[in-house]
Amino acid sequence: MPTNAYDDQNIFAKILRGEIPSHKVYEDDKTVVIMDIMPRGDGHILVIPKAPSRNILDIASEDLTAVMSVVQKMARAVLKAFGADGTTIQQFSEPAGGQVVFHTHVHVIPRFEGVPLRPHTGEMAANDVLAEHAGKIRAALA
Amino acid sequence: MPTNAYDDQNIFAKILRGEIPSHKVYEDDKTVVIMDIMPRGDGHILVIPKAPSRNILDIASEDLTAVMSVVQKMARAVLKAFGADGTTIQQFSEPAGGQVVFHTHVHVIPRFEGVPLRPHTGEMAANDVLAEHAGKIRAALA
Repeated sequence: MPTNAYDDQNIFAKILRGEIPSHKVYEDDKTVVIMDIMPRGDGHILVIPKAPSRNILDIASEDLTAVMSVVQKMARAVLKAFGADGTTIQQFSEPAGGQVVFHTHVHVIPRFEGVPLRPHTGEMAANDVLAEHAGKIRAALA
Repeated sequence: MPTNAYDDQNIFAKILRGEIPSHKVYEDDKTVVIMDIMPRGDGHILVIPKAPSRNILDIASEDLTAVMSVVQKMARAVLKAFGADGTTIQQFSEPAGGQVVFHTHVHVIPRFEGVPLRPHTGEMAANDVLAEHAGKIRAALA
């Protein structure tokens, strides 16, 4: 079993500390939700616990519960915000599992009939598009 | 937003009622874990709440919490059982989101360096292989 330690220089830790910007959609005492800057579908967001953990293997159970409660809230919100037909939720642990940033995060991707997930191209979405999508989700949550 | 109702004739409801067989890995008062019969990787399992719900959009929060607690337990167990390098966790809601069986379930897939997920072929794994993998996970949990 990997016993890799948490490294607080990861990009989500920097976002949580306000050291680098993000398109924030939601925040409560235990979680933050931001736009994925390399979305696999329009409105792709990430639910991130504020407490440090690497992934599903080491997250504290109260943080996992808080994250999943917000995942559910966000799944409902993106359906409303975008008129989506469904959601795909993913969580990757360790490089073999598909993890790239080593602070726990859960992907919530709005899905539309007939629209496949976009491939991982590493290409960043336009800032104005991300800002617009963030605004739609915040409005759906209001 | 889809307002599709729960239909208790889905295959997981039948498995929960014991009407059709499964390779059971784990059970507690709120969840059952079975082998996915069309695995996208060796040891691919499904965590299923006993209470009826269709997906993330309608599941009761206490059932979601119970499911995710078992997902975490299973992620750790499959790493031990198979010497896996990571895990991929997926939850699909509604057909557009990738859902095929309309009783909430969370996929836990052990992952190995350099081994991609197998495509959705619709092909069933051999019964003896599923039984062997279930046995390994049960042993890791013991």
